[in-house]
Amino acid sequence: MAPASAPPAADGGPVLVWRDALLSVVFVDELNYPGFTRVVWNGHVKEMTDLAATDREHVMWAVWQVEEAQRAVMAPEKVNLASFGNMTPHVHWHVIPRYADDAHFPNPTWAAAQREPDAQGLAARRALLPRLRAAIVANLNK
Amino acid sequence: MAPASAPPAADGGPVLVWRDALLSVVFVDELNYPGFTRVVWNGHVKEMTDLAATDREHVMWAVWQVEEAQRAVMAPEKVNLASFGNMTPHVHWHVIPRYADDAHFPNPTWAAAQREPDAQGLAARRALLPRLRAAIVANLNK
Repeated sequence: MAPASAPPAADGGPVLVWRDALLSVVFVDELNYPGFTRVVWNGHVKEMTDLAATDREHVMWAVWQVEEAQRAVMAPEKVNLASFGNMTPHVHWHVIPRYADDAHFPNPTWAAAQREPDAQGLAARRALLPRLRAAIVANLNK
Repeated sequence: MAPASAPPAADGGPVLVWRDALLSVVFVDELNYPGFTRVVWNGHVKEMTDLAATDREHVMWAVWQVEEAQRAVMAPEKVNLASFGNMTPHVHWHVIPRYADDAHFPNPTWAAAQREPDAQGLAARRALLPRLRAAIVANLNK
């Protein structure tokens, strides 16, 4: 259950932040990771090296814009970047702001949890989401 | 302990595959993941967006060359790419050939193991390492 202050997600799924003809940027509804963002290629392509070089550059450009926005707005300890696609073999990138007191730090978010994150700290980060969204959109529209 | 057929690693640590003035490519000594390769920025830089755009492009170019070589030589089910740096805040990328029967598939390799991988299958993949090394070096010297 999201805290009462959470921005509503119509279906509890990803929320579209920005989109062009080639890719979409979405907020992932991960309670313990406010700001967790995905960059998703619109076409059905399995591996980054299946894309043309200019398309790969476009994907990574979007990832850097998201990373810069997360750093500027959320001041994470570290940004984590990952493209797996084992379950959904369709090019997408996870861009995750990480904090020393988050549920898994210093492990990847897919590893064993290390602690129960502080609810107030999470709420404070969640309150930054409108600013993060604005910063991502501004970066991608530059 | 690595099987007797494993290529020797002087100290059990990463084995240098290729290096230029900016980055190094190394094989990681992960018994369950033959071909696990890292692309490591030589300078001490924490985040990808701390790098100049041309340097970021150089890093990702190296990652794509490694991915292409892994696909060509090892025919993985999927290639996994990740840059975390929570424990070692120094730009480095994990490039991991994944298989449906590997220890963690379809989970990331940092998640809970799913099975004990087949020793013969691992040995067959490990036997490809000299060809993988040659393909990575050839791609990076193109």
